[in-house]
Amino acid sequence: MTTVADVVAAQADQWLDQLVEWLRIPSQSGDPALAGEVRRSAEWLAAALRSAGFPTVELWETPGLPSVYAEWPADDPDAPVALVYAHHDVQPVEPLEQWVRPPYEPRVEGDRLYARGVADDKGHVAMHLLGLRAHLEAGGRSAPAVTLKLLVEGEEESGSPHFPALLAAQRERLACDVVVVSDTGMWAEDVPSTVIGLRGMLYLHLDLVARDVDLHSGSFGGAVLNPATAVARILGRLHDDDGRVAVPGFYDGVVDPSDEERALIASLPFDEQEWLANAHSRVASGEAGWTTLERVWCRPTAEVNGFWGGHVGAGSKTIVPREAHAHVSFRIVAGQEPAKVREAVEAWLADCAPSGAQLSLEWEGDGVRACSTSLDAPALQALHRAMETAFGVPVRVTREGGSGPEADIQEALGVPLVYLGATLPDAGCHAPNENAHIPTLLKGAQSAAHLWDELAALGAETVRREHA
Amino acid sequence: MTTVADVVAAQADQWLDQLVEWLRIPSQSGDPALAGEVRRSAEWLAAALRSAGFPTVELWETPGLPSVYAEWPADDPDAPVALVYAHHDVQPVEPLEQWVRPPYEPRVEGDRLYARGVADDKGHVAMHLLGLRAHLEAGGRSAPAVTLKLLVEGEEESGSPHFPALLAAQRERLACDVVVVSDTGMWAEDVPSTVIGLRGMLYLHLDLVARDVDLHSGSFGGAVLNPATAVARILGRLHDDDGRVAVPGFYDGVVDPSDEERALIASLPFDEQEWLANAHSRVASGEAGWTTLERVWCRPTAEVNGFWGGHVGAGSKTIVPREAHAHVSFRIVAGQEPAKVREAVEAWLADCAPSGAQLSLEWEGDGVRACSTSLDAPALQALHRAMETAFGVPVRVTREGGSGPEADIQEALGVPLVYLGATLPDAGCHAPNENAHIPTLLKGAQSAAHLWDELAALGAETVRREHA
Repeated sequence: MTTVADVVAAQADQWLDQLVEWLRIPSQSGDPALAGEVRRSAEWLAAALRSAGFPTVELWETPGLPSVYAEWPADDPDAPVALVYAHHDVQPVEPLEQWVRPPYEPRVEGDRLYARGVADDKGHVAMHLLGLRAHLEAGGRSAPAVTLKLLVEGEEESGSPHFPALLAAQRERLACDVVVVSDTGMWAEDVPSTVIGLRGMLYLHLDLVARDVDLHSGSFGGAVLNPATAVARILGRLHDDDGRVAVPGFYDGVVDPSDEERALIASLPFDEQEWLANAHSRVASGEAGWTTLERVWCRPTAEVNGFWGGHVGAGSKTIVPREAHAHVSFRIVAGQEPAKVREAVEAWLADCAPSGAQLSLEWEGDGVRACSTSLDAPALQALHRAMETAFGVPVRVTREGGSGPEADIQEALGVPLVYLGATLPDAGCHAPNENAHIPTLLKGAQSAAHLWDELAALGAETVRREHA
Repeated sequence: MTTVADVVAAQADQWLDQLVEWLRIPSQSGDPALAGEVRRSAEWLAAALRSAGFPTVELWETPGLPSVYAEWPADDPDAPVALVYAHHDVQPVEPLEQWVRPPYEPRVEGDRLYARGVADDKGHVAMHLLGLRAHLEAGGRSAPAVTLKLLVEGEEESGSPHFPALLAAQRERLACDVVVVSDTGMWAEDVPSTVIGLRGMLYLHLDLVARDVDLHSGSFGGAVLNPATAVARILGRLHDDDGRVAVPGFYDGVVDPSDEERALIASLPFDEQEWLANAHSRVASGEAGWTTLERVWCRPTAEVNGFWGGHVGAGSKTIVPREAHAHVSFRIVAGQEPAKVREAVEAWLADCAPSGAQLSLEWEGDGVRACSTSLDAPALQALHRAMETAFGVPVRVTREGGSGPEADIQEALGVPLVYLGATLPDAGCHAPNENAHIPTLLKGAQSAAHLWDELAALGAETVRREHA
């Protein structure tokens, strides 16, 4: 009997050649000059999905760049419906001089395939193509065991500006029992893991304008408002001495990780010195009472992403600045409502702001909610079983500190999200020399092949459940 | 009998033509491309001083741009020696498009003469030339009543980088009983005044570097030091809630203005609304317990002249910045030692600085002491009598909040400084459309003419006294 592992092993070389072809297309959504390449990438993928057997393949247009949608119904009309989310656009490549190999000339070296987009996120789409083939061939099927839908976005690396509208417009066609997000990583090559939470985010631009000109600090200093000082006083009060965000009401509703999850986090093979080296930092710091991983995964934060005012750069200038500015972002966690956090921050700022200057606040959009998956969600358990079959070792859980369009998906579709991703921590996502670890990607493909069987065995109603 | 006023009136037109010629020379010391023009300005002045009758006229070279020195001994070898300080270099002219008239094509309109440098400071040098002529002609003298020395600097608008060394090298030739600084202004056209104090200054560049790269605020935010937050916390603690500088020891030694001086300041015709309009500010603010004029004249301050870190400008970037920076300057007053203030600030910063980041402090030079003249200094009283003769109304005292090379002069020569300046508040110094009010400048010339007589009448020993 041919197994999933057999098919994956037999097809690996040909599959890799196909992926390399796709990786040659510089589908950078952030560069308007490369919009045509993003479209070419979408068309390449649509053709690949058609030759893989998907009966329905469409380019979904947006006011920006196109997504690719594909659908392959199960033979059983009551089979669960799984929607895979990934993206085909890639990050910019600057600084180009730091790439050891040109980013769009993919090269295999040892176990790794190097190219922009191979980890984030074209490799994951390819992983599903190979996984589906193994699922069909090893199972002797002409259709997958679940109804499979694929949504591969074209603007993820540009902040998904048109994605919520697309989700809203296509909600009925995207209806499903579970979403499988394939745009994340694993703890380590020998420690397969899935993600069960992402933080949400709000991003604030703050401007404090005291006047229309800079003043001479000799002639006026000491008797007029200094907006740089005022903004420093605001930002300086953003945290208390324990590293907690000092905005009243900020923590309202926060759902803390369960004792079970904290224990799982604590059990991960974590080397703080290695993490610090990775963070180019000498010391860990942050909110008292939480470990480093808990701080980045489970705790809401306020970060000054940038500030400026008055004379910047070398040299000296004796001025009282006219105005000062800051970018501040808030990561939020399960239980925090973006709108309420925004209200709390605005009320606090109204309290902190000095009189005699104009404080203007501009928020980026409505903010993004946090995403979370229950440890006992049946779909998560099914994913872990599928991965354990492929990897042969227990699968762990992690979270990610960042935020993504997953929150929009969860909100639009209202079903559990699970994360099947095969990127390793040293994959160089958003950085030079991006790479994928081929054996891990192949085990990811095997996991996908098994996952469709595991989900089919549960039945649609169970798959949809948040809790066991 | 010909009076000082007669001579000034008779010579005014010719004198103005001569000044206009000088003002056509763009002697901007800040622009290396115009170094030749600064030299041409020095040579023009040297020639003018020679034709005015100064027996000794020299260009004093520095590693930068030349100063002009002139000396005219009194007939009486025991007469007081007065040293006039001014400068012949000018500010840049940008933004050029805001000049109604080209800055180097001087034009008389109504009572005003418009040109770069006419107020700051060539007009004052010319004022002394005219004053000296009136002094000689009205007094029927072949030499001034005091031994007159003139030092006209060429790099004042560039921070006088070589001036302290020049003072040290020429200390013996500059020896005098009083310095007459002519580089300041008057309260108003109808309120002649002299300056009795300047604040000193220290300028600090502060850099806090946490790492060599910016970090993703999703992946690392909350668990690593944010240097922008840390710098904001430092700057935010620079003042207490009463607007006092919170650095322990900062106020050590501060000499408060006497009750007499506070009363004199309070009696000035001061319109706070007008001052605020001038400051482009909506509200006065600053240290509790002091008036606006006291805050800018008599109180030490800490001002954030600029800060920056992380993502600056439009758009958003989700980073934890690698480093953050600030320029902070401290104005100091009589009784404060720059070196001790520096020590206090450094000790405080060592206390505030977070661990795990590199705090670097760079001070601009050694700092500048404050300058002050006693209300009862005989030379000041002499100046007031001279001005009252010229203006016909009582003369008031003011201070200036800024700092200048005067402190170096006072330290090098150890004699009283008095300030005879005729610039009005709307003169546009360091700004477009710089101008001089000609009648005030002519009264300034008369004041100078009388001053030499007043000082001669006191005798050298009295002129040197700090107190009556």
